[in-house]
Amino acid sequence: MTSPRFDILGIGNAIVDVVARADDAFLSKHNMRKGAMTLIDAVAAEKLYSAMPPGQESSGGSVANTCAIAAGLGARVAYLGKVAEDQLGEVFRHDITNAGVHFPTSALKDGVPTARCLILVTSDGQRTMNTYLGACVAFGISDLDDALINDSAILYLEGYLFDPPAAQAAFRRAAAMARQAGRRVALSLSDAFCVDRHRAAFRDLLTGGVDMLFANEAEISSLYECNTFAEAMEHARWDVPLAALTRSEAGSVIIKGSETYPIAAEPARVVDTTGAGDAYAAGFLAGFAAGRSLPSCGRLGSLCAAATIADYGARPLQPIQLDADESF
Amino acid sequence: MTSPRFDILGIGNAIVDVVARADDAFLSKHNMRKGAMTLIDAVAAEKLYSAMPPGQESSGGSVANTCAIAAGLGARVAYLGKVAEDQLGEVFRHDITNAGVHFPTSALKDGVPTARCLILVTSDGQRTMNTYLGACVAFGISDLDDALINDSAILYLEGYLFDPPAAQAAFRRAAAMARQAGRRVALSLSDAFCVDRHRAAFRDLLTGGVDMLFANEAEISSLYECNTFAEAMEHARWDVPLAALTRSEAGSVIIKGSETYPIAAEPARVVDTTGAGDAYAAGFLAGFAAGRSLPSCGRLGSLCAAATIADYGARPLQPIQLDADESF
Repeated sequence: MTSPRFDILGIGNAIVDVVARADDAFLSKHNMRKGAMTLIDAVAAEKLYSAMPPGQESSGGSVANTCAIAAGLGARVAYLGKVAEDQLGEVFRHDITNAGVHFPTSALKDGVPTARCLILVTSDGQRTMNTYLGACVAFGISDLDDALINDSAILYLEGYLFDPPAAQAAFRRAAAMARQAGRRVALSLSDAFCVDRHRAAFRDLLTGGVDMLFANEAEISSLYECNTFAEAMEHARWDVPLAALTRSEAGSVIIKGSETYPIAAEPARVVDTTGAGDAYAAGFLAGFAAGRSLPSCGRLGSLCAAATIADYGARPLQPIQLDADESF
Repeated sequence: MTSPRFDILGIGNAIVDVVARADDAFLSKHNMRKGAMTLIDAVAAEKLYSAMPPGQESSGGSVANTCAIAAGLGARVAYLGKVAEDQLGEVFRHDITNAGVHFPTSALKDGVPTARCLILVTSDGQRTMNTYLGACVAFGISDLDDALINDSAILYLEGYLFDPPAAQAAFRRAAAMARQAGRRVALSLSDAFCVDRHRAAFRDLLTGGVDMLFANEAEISSLYECNTFAEAMEHARWDVPLAALTRSEAGSVIIKGSETYPIAAEPARVVDTTGAGDAYAAGFLAGFAAGRSLPSCGRLGSLCAAATIADYGARPLQPIQLDADESF
């Protein structure tokens, strides 16, 4: 096995975010589940966008956010995901490429637009997401790059890929290839309602080849249908070699077999929690790829999450500040 | 003369901003004048965008920013400006419409895209702007709406309209119609280098029918080719009935004939000064339309400017907070 060219290869739904402020009444009026990601079709997306306050556009997508931030920290990163050949697709490609991420996936040309996620941020900093998958439904096995999978130390996949069927097939194929190549497979559970839609499949994946798991409290509790975080954590300990479980302002817990590392959250002003989990995974994976200890990986995750929630959008425009003893 | 339907009718270049962080070395390498607005063509825009770090997109355009913020404060506002029928044009239309601004201008369908302004923000909060005018060059006299001009108390125009020739013709025509209808004409000088390009014409306008002037220190000094602000201010006092002259952290000065009102800046954390002047004009004009005193108009301008520079982008996503005694 040769030394891999990339530290991380991410695969995910390639999405442009539209972020706006709203109040709880707006969420209720449009029947939104606060804090969740809901899939909507083109008609519903147009209707909701018409009703939304003025917004800001920026590149998003859970794993794409992680890849962009990890590359900013110095990790060698590649990404696969489908945008359309349109202005928002160009924005997505520009942003991930100029973040330093290798992004070889071709754009879709059949007229279906780039995916967008309409995000309503409430005054408590919570984000409520409504995703129109657009071109993402066209991502499939033919978009996989075998050499790239073989040549990346960690394959990082998002649970959201289970929503579009062709992407789910690509997810399974990529994971199998990475395992065969002796690479690590990491999974983010994405969203508690996404876990609800694919619970059995995700549990099979965890016991059948996933090496690293990223999940927040709601997701891991949904996965194992547990009432307490402590209980869900013990299930994860049995199922997967390494898990990083995040708990918002309560920090995170890293578990590896019998080892348990509680990690404090980094103090932050909370403007918009969009991308907090993605940023945590970025810090963690960049640290892991650089051979840091697990507590150090967790601390990097906390720092990246804090930098992300201090402003609107999932990827900080301002470079993430690391102390001298933490920088790469 | 009937009571007008709108407080403010703005006309300007309709632009989507792309905001990214950069350092002074990046500005030097790309031969940019720090703090200025430079016009670039499609080829230069593509080249610069390729080189720019990841960014955030949001609706911009100087007068459009003013209109959106003024409407948020409760003023009745309309806007004329040209976008293309593309995704960024839809973003612009969505944002200004959902800010509460009446925006009747039809979109351009000839394939020229919506204008964009590539904005590099340095760590001192200064913004350096590079504008590709795109569809804005198609805005002309046929886009004017006579009834709308007659029906708006204040016509607010930007100096930037002098750059595309057809828009300049529309500017002159609109100003003449507003005067005939007994409405007020307000002008923003936009940018010191824009003043350089059109100095004689702007000086003619000020003595020949502009009722209110908005300018910052660099712009007013460039207009009158003065070495000191005090000197330039006295020229303006002779030329125009009312002027609001802004001086960044030194606040602003309002002059009306022999009256002079110095206004303090509102304390703010400075992240990105993009749109500070536009926001000041929004507060001032909204106050003026509501019959506030000139110092109160200036204070509203300061509050709006402070809210705008605290985050990236020209229009705050967060509602601007006014004290009970200042709210409309």
